Amino acid sequence: MSDHIDPAKLDRLAEVAVRTGVNLQPGQDLVITAPLAAIDLVRRIAVHAYKAGGGIVTPFFSDDAITLARYEHAPDESFNRAPEWLYEGMAAAFKSGAARMAITGDDPMLLAEQDPAKVARLSKATSIAAKPAMNPIVGFEVNWNVVAYPGAAWASRVFPDLPVEEAQGKLMDAIYDASRLGGDDPVANWEAHSKNLRERVDWLNAQNFAALHYTGPGTDLHLGLAEGHIWKGGASLALNGVVCQPNIPTEEVFTCPHAYKVEGTVSATKPLAHQGKVIEDIQVRFEAGKIVEAKASKGEDILNQLLNTDDGASRIGEVALVPHSSPISQSGVLFYNTLFDENASCHIALGQCYADTIEGGSELSPEQLKQKGGNQSIIHVDWMMGSDAVDIDGITKMGERVPVMRGGEWA
Amino acid sequence: MSDHIDPAKLDRLAEVAVRTGVNLQPGQDLVITAPLAAIDLVRRIAVHAYKAGGGIVTPFFSDDAITLARYEHAPDESFNRAPEWLYEGMAAAFKSGAARMAITGDDPMLLAEQDPAKVARLSKATSIAAKPAMNPIVGFEVNWNVVAYPGAAWASRVFPDLPVEEAQGKLMDAIYDASRLGGDDPVANWEAHSKNLRERVDWLNAQNFAALHYTGPGTDLHLGLAEGHIWKGGASLALNGVVCQPNIPTEEVFTCPHAYKVEGTVSATKPLAHQGKVIEDIQVRFEAGKIVEAKASKGEDILNQLLNTDDGASRIGEVALVPHSSPISQSGVLFYNTLFDENASCHIALGQCYADTIEGGSELSPEQLKQKGGNQSIIHVDWMMGSDAVDIDGITKMGERVPVMRGGEWA
Ligand SMILES: [Zn+2]
Ligand SMILES: [Zn+2]
Ligand SMILES: [Zn+2]
Ligand SMILES: [Zn+2]
Repeated sequence: MSDHIDPAKLDRLAEVAVRTGVNLQPGQDLVITAPLAAIDLVRRIAVHAYKAGGGIVTPFFSDDAITLARYEHAPDESFNRAPEWLYEGMAAAFKSGAARMAITGDDPMLLAEQDPAKVARLSKATSIAAKPAMNPIVGFEVNWNVVAYPGAAWASRVFPDLPVEEAQGKLMDAIYDASRLGGDDPVANWEAHSKNLRERVDWLNAQNFAALHYTGPGTDLHLGLAEGHIWKGGASLALNGVVCQPNIPTEEVFTCPHAYKVEGTVSATKPLAHQGKVIEDIQVRFEAGKIVEAKASKGEDILNQLLNTDDGASRIGEVALVPHSSPISQSGVLFYNTLFDENASCHIALGQCYADTIEGGSELSPEQLKQKGGNQSIIHVDWMMGSDAVDIDGITKMGERVPVMRGGEWA
Repeated sequence: MSDHIDPAKLDRLAEVAVRTGVNLQPGQDLVITAPLAAIDLVRRIAVHAYKAGGGIVTPFFSDDAITLARYEHAPDESFNRAPEWLYEGMAAAFKSGAARMAITGDDPMLLAEQDPAKVARLSKATSIAAKPAMNPIVGFEVNWNVVAYPGAAWASRVFPDLPVEEAQGKLMDAIYDASRLGGDDPVANWEAHSKNLRERVDWLNAQNFAALHYTGPGTDLHLGLAEGHIWKGGASLALNGVVCQPNIPTEEVFTCPHAYKVEGTVSATKPLAHQGKVIEDIQVRFEAGKIVEAKASKGEDILNQLLNTDDGASRIGEVALVPHSSPISQSGVLFYNTLFDENASCHIALGQCYADTIEGGSELSPEQLKQKGGNQSIIHVDWMMGSDAVDIDGITKMGERVPVMRGGEWA
């Protein structure tokens, strides 16, 4: 571990992740996926999980060097396949009641030097194979949570001018602040924060807008909302009856857009880091929900590859509102990590919708979800388009306009 | 990694483990279980596996700190359970053709301070849950291999007077020598070594003894052999058609004793390390194959707990012959690790037999195996009883005596 990572901060992250994040129940098993570099966080999570009365903690580690060994030496056919048995095993764990925790913090540029076609093929094969393990998570069948560890490569990317150990220490501090871990009682702080998000959610659900209209530099977007859409934010009630905080940090309220009722143009306000590449100055045009034109000043080929992954990859499955004054936005840190950056800015996500952001969505067939406007894809990629120059109106079913955000803040 | 571990030796171990040990086939997946401390070896194995044309390498890491967190903080019920879904996942991998590699080298004293009852309960729960994953290995449905990494705690146990990093370097050297990795062409050396073992095996199978008779200090043992027993040693032909070297190192030839035809007394010649405890000066008496008396100068309670694990735990499932002049024996190093110590001495194993050491055994029902003398248990614990003072005779079906070993050497 980096000497510069404050162990008290790391331990508090672990404790809040267990108690508030995944909210592990007595006797409940816990499946953790983590980069090997995050071992110090995983060990602390295991301690807090067992202290909370958890059953069995089972970690799965990925390792950057082993991943690179595959890219450098494996036969070409290897990139069409993923270990299905592993994901089916995890699915069996969730079926038997296990909760899930994912640690992020890998090197965002790990695959930058690798053949993009291989990266895309393996990513697609993995997404397909992982479906049995992802569906119970996306569908909130069990309580789950994602937190971040300040891995060396990631920290150096965020703070390129610092020696790596110092960068890790500084990134730990940034994670700590962004995750609202300070103060005497972070669990109580999280309850208050979650209540604030809940009030926004309740107001938006009461308005029950038909659409949102975004205006700003390079953006004039009419974004229809799915039939029976539900705004969510903060805590989630999983189908197993456990309330969890899926993301730490989280600042967003979000719902399901209508995949066939999005029209106009939108400009990204931050670079998009995807599979080891950075895509800059994205501009797209929607027609009937589909992106029909896509430009970028850098990485346009990666963007087009992403949009062509499958049918749903060029439509959107999530729309999220985040005030420009959010602590993460105000920190000015570009994290190159969706868990953080999506909480710095209003955003939309290409690809898969969250079924539970449509009323009764978890019980709907794919065809029924589609009829309500819910998008389906093997990808879900968040994409920042908020700033202090963006205004948003809600459009009621009667066609009236209600100010939602002005200059990036709640109106 | 310890600076004192010679990277060239570690890399050769990885290469021989992949090419000679598991003999990974083009396109074949590989499941690895390893202590996290062995990451440097696992990374090198991944490189050699992919270079050999392997499909997907999937490592599972155990971590001493996380294991201890469970003992220190988990609720009592946790020790009755193991993650069945994980072992069923591995079983699915083997069914789909994956090979298996296990890395040993954990801290042999890790659980020394823990409640022995908890240790025994968790070990039993894990053995039962792991059956779906262990059966295809024990039954050689796929090619597999075990090798060792010189972990810090293990190295300090073997060389307690050295600073830990130096101990690791020295243990790496000892592993290298014991594993016959030196010279220009270790793969060819292994072929020659395997041929020698094969010649012993062929002679013993041609003799087709009814029993072995051991005499030595504190030992006078009549050990019946199973009906249709087959001596094995060196390379194994797995049912998937791949020849592998299951153990690196290996010096033993072994077969299946008759679980109901063992009579007399036997004294262990080395301490037995079991679940973090050392059992010393074991002396047992067999009647009709069952241990009816067991003494030890230290750890007698652990020994009795072990013998009471289940019905088959007080009978034997393996008998193995190793000359006292084997390189591991001559090194004088006590490794506190079965993979090595069993290759320094003639031994027997309490518990489960290897079905493939009985003719057609892999196709027999448990009842049929039992009728031939094959023992069944959830444990398999090797137990050293050879020395330069032990003589062994073979007893033919006609009751004639044929010298097998004299003063610990092939007669
Ligand atoms: Zn979002
Ligand atoms: Zn999203
Ligand atoms: Zn043996
Ligand atoms: Zn054995």
